[in-house]
Amino acid sequence: MDEPWGRRCSVARTLSVISDPWTFIVLREAYFGVRRFEDFQRRLGIARNVLTNRLRQLVDQGIFVRRQYQVRPTRSEYRLSEKGADLYPVFVEMMGWGDRWMAGDEGPPLLLYHRDCGHHIEPQMACAHCGEVITAHAVNYKDGPGAGPATA
Amino acid sequence: MDEPWGRRCSVARTLSVISDPWTFIVLREAYFGVRRFEDFQRRLGIARNVLTNRLRQLVDQGIFVRRQYQVRPTRSEYRLSEKGADLYPVFVEMMGWGDRWMAGDEGPPLLLYHRDCGHHIEPQMACAHCGEVITAHAVNYKDGPGAGPATA
Repeated sequence: MDEPWGRRCSVARTLSVISDPWTFIVLREAYFGVRRFEDFQRRLGIARNVLTNRLRQLVDQGIFVRRQYQVRPTRSEYRLSEKGADLYPVFVEMMGWGDRWMAGDEGPPLLLYHRDCGHHIEPQMACAHCGEVITAHAVNYKDGPGAGPATA
Repeated sequence: MDEPWGRRCSVARTLSVISDPWTFIVLREAYFGVRRFEDFQRRLGIARNVLTNRLRQLVDQGIFVRRQYQVRPTRSEYRLSEKGADLYPVFVEMMGWGDRWMAGDEGPPLLLYHRDCGHHIEPQMACAHCGEVITAHAVNYKDGPGAGPATA
């Protein structure tokens, strides 16, 4: 799948899931707590067939779990699976970068607050072992078990 | 730019920069330390005109800074700007998710080690204030200064 792009790569695999614009915004609304077809539709103004298609795809990928909450007529809601919820840090890191570099003079469109402690969240990636902030210069790379043959 | 997607959104702005597959892999190789046209070209097997185009675009976006290192013939290298280097945590978070959910039985293609302390890096996003791991359920949202009119 990602093998055309020079090496086996978990980043390419993740991008293959989230880089479709409609898929991405459906996921984004899910992080805001949206679960029902009608609510996604109303908030996004997305065509119903496109929304149906993206929700089905996200269920197939194991990002959403579909659950029926009403029988006549049949109504389902779409809840984030563990796999889907685990994409959240990716969104927050992307949001942080967009806030810092692409928000212009207006400033960030959205602010995040940690529910438990009430503080504004500005993501910063640190080494879980020593606590230092991680930059590209501070990282060494080794092939992992799934590296496959002949990386450059 | 991202306004069609329902609300002003720093995540959409970031995705607009990195979601083009060739742009993404050029950036990825830059994090591995690649700087020169010929090295990008050799490692990726990318068509020269496509590479030229993507490098120019990344310079225009302020992600790379171009610097001439040879005069006859003219040769330039492409170094990550502060803005470009700051995208690194986004890549590491995407890599973490791909490793956890899309690597299959083979395991991760690549392992990261923190140069300073030697430990394997598994990114985990924590609240800078209280140290707790941040999940979507633990976050409250408020409009920021750049929210614009009439968000849903």
